[in-house]
Amino acid sequence: MEALDYHAEERRKAEFDVEEMKIVWAGSRQAYEISDRVARLVASDPVFRKDNRTMLSRKDLFKDTLRKAAHAWKRIIELRLSEEEASKLRFFVDQPVFTDLHWGMFIPAIKGQGNDEQQQKWLPMAYKMQIIGCYAQTELGHGSNVQGLETTAIFDPETDEFVIHSPTLTSSKWWPGGLGKVSTHALVYARLITDGQDHGVHGFIVQLRSLDDHLPLPGITVGDIGMKFGSGAYNSMDNGVLRFDHVRIPRDQMLMGVSQVTREGKFMQSDVPRQLVYGTMVYVRQKIVADASCALSRAVCIATRYSVVRRQFGSHNGGPETQVIDYKTQQSRLFPLLASAYAFRFVGEWLKWLYTDVTQRLQASDFSTLPEVHACTAGLKSVTTSATADAIEECRKLCGGHGYLSSSGLPELFAVYVPACTYEGDNVVLLLQVARFLMKTVSQLGSGKKPVGTIAYMGRSEHLLQCRCEVERAEDWLKPNVILEAFEARAARMSVTCAKNLNNFPNQEEGFAQLATDLAEAAVAHVQLIIVSKFIEKLQQDIPGKGVKRQLEILFNVYALSLLHKHLGDFVASGCITPKQGALANEQLRLLYSQVRPNAIALVDAFNYTDHFLGSVLGRYDGNVYPKLYEEAWKDPLNETVVPDGYHEYIRPILKQHIRVARL
Amino acid sequence: MEALDYHAEERRKAEFDVEEMKIVWAGSRQAYEISDRVARLVASDPVFRKDNRTMLSRKDLFKDTLRKAAHAWKRIIELRLSEEEASKLRFFVDQPVFTDLHWGMFIPAIKGQGNDEQQQKWLPMAYKMQIIGCYAQTELGHGSNVQGLETTAIFDPETDEFVIHSPTLTSSKWWPGGLGKVSTHALVYARLITDGQDHGVHGFIVQLRSLDDHLPLPGITVGDIGMKFGSGAYNSMDNGVLRFDHVRIPRDQMLMGVSQVTREGKFMQSDVPRQLVYGTMVYVRQKIVADASCALSRAVCIATRYSVVRRQFGSHNGGPETQVIDYKTQQSRLFPLLASAYAFRFVGEWLKWLYTDVTQRLQASDFSTLPEVHACTAGLKSVTTSATADAIEECRKLCGGHGYLSSSGLPELFAVYVPACTYEGDNVVLLLQVARFLMKTVSQLGSGKKPVGTIAYMGRSEHLLQCRCEVERAEDWLKPNVILEAFEARAARMSVTCAKNLNNFPNQEEGFAQLATDLAEAAVAHVQLIIVSKFIEKLQQDIPGKGVKRQLEILFNVYALSLLHKHLGDFVASGCITPKQGALANEQLRLLYSQVRPNAIALVDAFNYTDHFLGSVLGRYDGNVYPKLYEEAWKDPLNETVVPDGYHEYIRPILKQHIRVARL
Repeated sequence: MEALDYHAEERRKAEFDVEEMKIVWAGSRQAYEISDRVARLVASDPVFRKDNRTMLSRKDLFKDTLRKAAHAWKRIIELRLSEEEASKLRFFVDQPVFTDLHWGMFIPAIKGQGNDEQQQKWLPMAYKMQIIGCYAQTELGHGSNVQGLETTAIFDPETDEFVIHSPTLTSSKWWPGGLGKVSTHALVYARLITDGQDHGVHGFIVQLRSLDDHLPLPGITVGDIGMKFGSGAYNSMDNGVLRFDHVRIPRDQMLMGVSQVTREGKFMQSDVPRQLVYGTMVYVRQKIVADASCALSRAVCIATRYSVVRRQFGSHNGGPETQVIDYKTQQSRLFPLLASAYAFRFVGEWLKWLYTDVTQRLQASDFSTLPEVHACTAGLKSVTTSATADAIEECRKLCGGHGYLSSSGLPELFAVYVPACTYEGDNVVLLLQVARFLMKTVSQLGSGKKPVGTIAYMGRSEHLLQCRCEVERAEDWLKPNVILEAFEARAARMSVTCAKNLNNFPNQEEGFAQLATDLAEAAVAHVQLIIVSKFIEKLQQDIPGKGVKRQLEILFNVYALSLLHKHLGDFVASGCITPKQGALANEQLRLLYSQVRPNAIALVDAFNYTDHFLGSVLGRYDGNVYPKLYEEAWKDPLNETVVPDGYHEYIRPILKQHIRVARL
Repeated sequence: MEALDYHAEERRKAEFDVEEMKIVWAGSRQAYEISDRVARLVASDPVFRKDNRTMLSRKDLFKDTLRKAAHAWKRIIELRLSEEEASKLRFFVDQPVFTDLHWGMFIPAIKGQGNDEQQQKWLPMAYKMQIIGCYAQTELGHGSNVQGLETTAIFDPETDEFVIHSPTLTSSKWWPGGLGKVSTHALVYARLITDGQDHGVHGFIVQLRSLDDHLPLPGITVGDIGMKFGSGAYNSMDNGVLRFDHVRIPRDQMLMGVSQVTREGKFMQSDVPRQLVYGTMVYVRQKIVADASCALSRAVCIATRYSVVRRQFGSHNGGPETQVIDYKTQQSRLFPLLASAYAFRFVGEWLKWLYTDVTQRLQASDFSTLPEVHACTAGLKSVTTSATADAIEECRKLCGGHGYLSSSGLPELFAVYVPACTYEGDNVVLLLQVARFLMKTVSQLGSGKKPVGTIAYMGRSEHLLQCRCEVERAEDWLKPNVILEAFEARAARMSVTCAKNLNNFPNQEEGFAQLATDLAEAAVAHVQLIIVSKFIEKLQQDIPGKGVKRQLEILFNVYALSLLHKHLGDFVASGCITPKQGALANEQLRLLYSQVRPNAIALVDAFNYTDHFLGSVLGRYDGNVYPKLYEEAWKDPLNETVVPDGYHEYIRPILKQHIRVARL
């Protein structure tokens, strides 16, 4: 018997080889195969079921999460999974949990900031999970400004120890995942003080809980910080609060890879250059960009599949109504997001390469590219996460009323995703860092110092400041070079304009503060240019598979032209393109949507997500939406009884007019 | 002892009379006094506590909601509250519940669509809540397209009854609030069929549950549709699913105010004009716009108060860091939202007037303004709810990481608000209705038919299509007339351009489908113009109180110029303003932010929200944020035990390396 597939007809419409596109999406055939195998492994394991997650109370959800984490670890050991496979498995379990921080922050920080002895001592225990660690940096009163942290680590030369202390309420560690209920150890960031002198913020390994009975050690107050956005979502994580009352740790638990404190209490910068920490930062940010493309593609997959199932209006003579995906208003909101998912995927892939490149340069003590790499990763983190958060909510709205149901998967996806806009650098703060780099680049243009990498286009700013776009017909907008130049001209002119306006202020800092909004907009223009140019580079690669490259070209054009339409004011104001050319871009965009339409389902199939991972009735692979929505509804706890709990106390007295005398 | 008030200094900075502004916000002194009294009544009643709401399981939350509804009803009776006061009380209880639909939809529909006998029979029971009703319109497969509903009501002349039936799965009623677990009756919309002929969709009063034991009556399947977005939020409501298996009701339970079915089964349109239903629609939409200004102002109040408390970066010589509200990036995101709250409030006030005006006209059988009123209310519903939903999330982000905590109040506010973008007309569908009206208006321009009301400006389109903005210096942008003309020119030109482009298509319908996105953008331009012009009308009124008018002028300029900046592409493309003038508007905007800054706290104090209603630790009136955040955290159920439930089963086996043999 053939399996039910309401999308079968849509799938037959595809004009390209979807299996080849899956490999393009995954990055390589090997990556695709690992991903595919591990995803199915997770999907088929009943312990990893998550369809009831949003109905659980906080405590039940937390216990369910602990169970999944233990089961995941058991499977990883039993199946002898590689590090990559294990990481994929945790990813597909798709429920935030303490191990995310143990593997993603605690271990990398020890690797990156510990010296050799420290790595030899702590890493084996951590790898075996004999200890569980978290990353305790942010405080109740201190997020973005790490240098403002208040926790102190005062060296006591008499005992050869550091005294870790929380001097104020606002110095309480606040937010670290895994801290609240689970971690046995924490990497605590605190102000190092020796002999009365403050040496700034450094990392310290502090044991929090007894390895025997899990009780907090003396001097340590620790707990969970409470409910967060959404049901399910990040409430599976024990983000925590932590206070120290003069907690003593041995001197060798300060991470000494970069700086050291000697037995005598002398503070020494190590000869290892501080810049090495940038490697970790690039790594974390490329992961965030990869996660953005993943979250965005999930939302787009759900919205696309349901837009094909859902019909509304347009019935002729009692025939079926129109599929909502055929409406231009639906296409113009959905397809740019589909294109963005691919765009972010490719720029994320490039960031992986950049990480390797930076690592090699750092090992060779070549720090020349660091400022550009820092600006470009900061900017990409900011732009991709902001766009993704907005896009998930847009996809939810694109599903109409049913997108509001937890069973659509979209509310939880949104709630679990949005913190990405804030953690690892607030998105606006990051844009201003990019802007500083841009202003510095502009100010050095005359100096003969040639801009490199993603900022190389500034070297041609003389041309870019006066070039005029040559588009005469809508189809001229299909040329990558035309698009690239328009984006370069816009970015260059916005930066140069900001730099000029800065000169009107008595001092640079005051100007920077006053023009911060313009500067952030210039940074966005720069980053969007990077994404556009990396998409073009991808298209220049050899891409096998029938019709695959053609689809990517269409998506590229949709991505770039929809941005151009959205930011038309920027483009026109910078003088490179005329309003008339903007209208032509819009016309071309409409034609492109018609080309995406028959391939839409196949383009989201290429993400190769299991129904388990998607976690959405609306996004089911087989499109069998309505019977399943109906079925899901009855599982709600409220439906356990026909007459609801509370009827006799609170409804019946109203109906029977006994409310005056009711005891409520 | 003086009460703690961290905001006291900020309050002293205010340059206007905040007590007078409270009256402006409320609409009148009387409205202010009622609102203030009822809000305090609710806030001081321990039954209405809501600070633990997001931690409750679905069943506990639902029972808590029933309790509050019963208590609210009891207080309304005990205190002999007027209808207005009772409605305010339910509003300040701030927890979606079945009574919202009973009072807000069931009763008004009987009043609006029932005939005299029906009103006499049903309304007294409904007013006393001897019956509880809901509004069962949307179906699993049918939302926006009411004419596509599938439920049937077939007249049986033999028994003088209608047979209500759900012929398909997709015809299941789906979403009605109060249906799932509580309502005894429903207003069911179904296709009326007499003698084999389909007369379209009509309303029927159907009893669902026994008044004795609350069990569903024979032939009725009813339940809750399951969890929705967020924790707390709309999960307090029993949105329901309902199926009919040939349920019989007497003929006189079809609402016969407009159409009738005789004893013989003859369908008759009443002589009461169908247009009367528009009155209800205008009423509902003005209420939605008023709710938008309320939800938006709550979010803005929280974000503004916390932006004053929160400090980040910029410390000099160990002094305090900079208040984040002093950053231009914070101001440029927050202050336009503050200004929008006031703008929406005033346009909502005007809609109240419009409702009275329309009602009077309808009673006098004057239907001339209906198309314009329909377009304007549809557009305002769409634009204000979309902007508010986005703004709440923006305010959450403006609170940094702590905005992600449920105790900030913002996640729940967002989750409970977003359905407003979908219910009572999907926002995009509504914009297209506005666009149809705009295109019709343009096409009739030559015909001598003079556009009236909110579309009157189109009568001056000849001038508007060629006028040039005369701004030469930034301060020229402070003039209301300059702003008004720029918004009129933009709106008129976008509509006229769409109308021209429509002519390029072989038929109007195909053109409308293809250009839907442009048309929706033209509709937004039209609606923003309405909001701007109603704000100007407000400023032309006599506004007492020191400095109050001045503040409103500043907010008006912020609202209008921030829209101009956001949609600069539209304005420049339409040729009325130059990029240079756009840059001047931006410059002026920056200066305006500095003028808002000292008044920011007083401007949100003017909303007069109690801490209970705000429901936010970050938005506390006294600004005592951090100690309260810390205190709230410990209330989480996870903190009931030091060692979490699940430690022995799932954490200890990992740490002790017993995971291989663990039974999970």
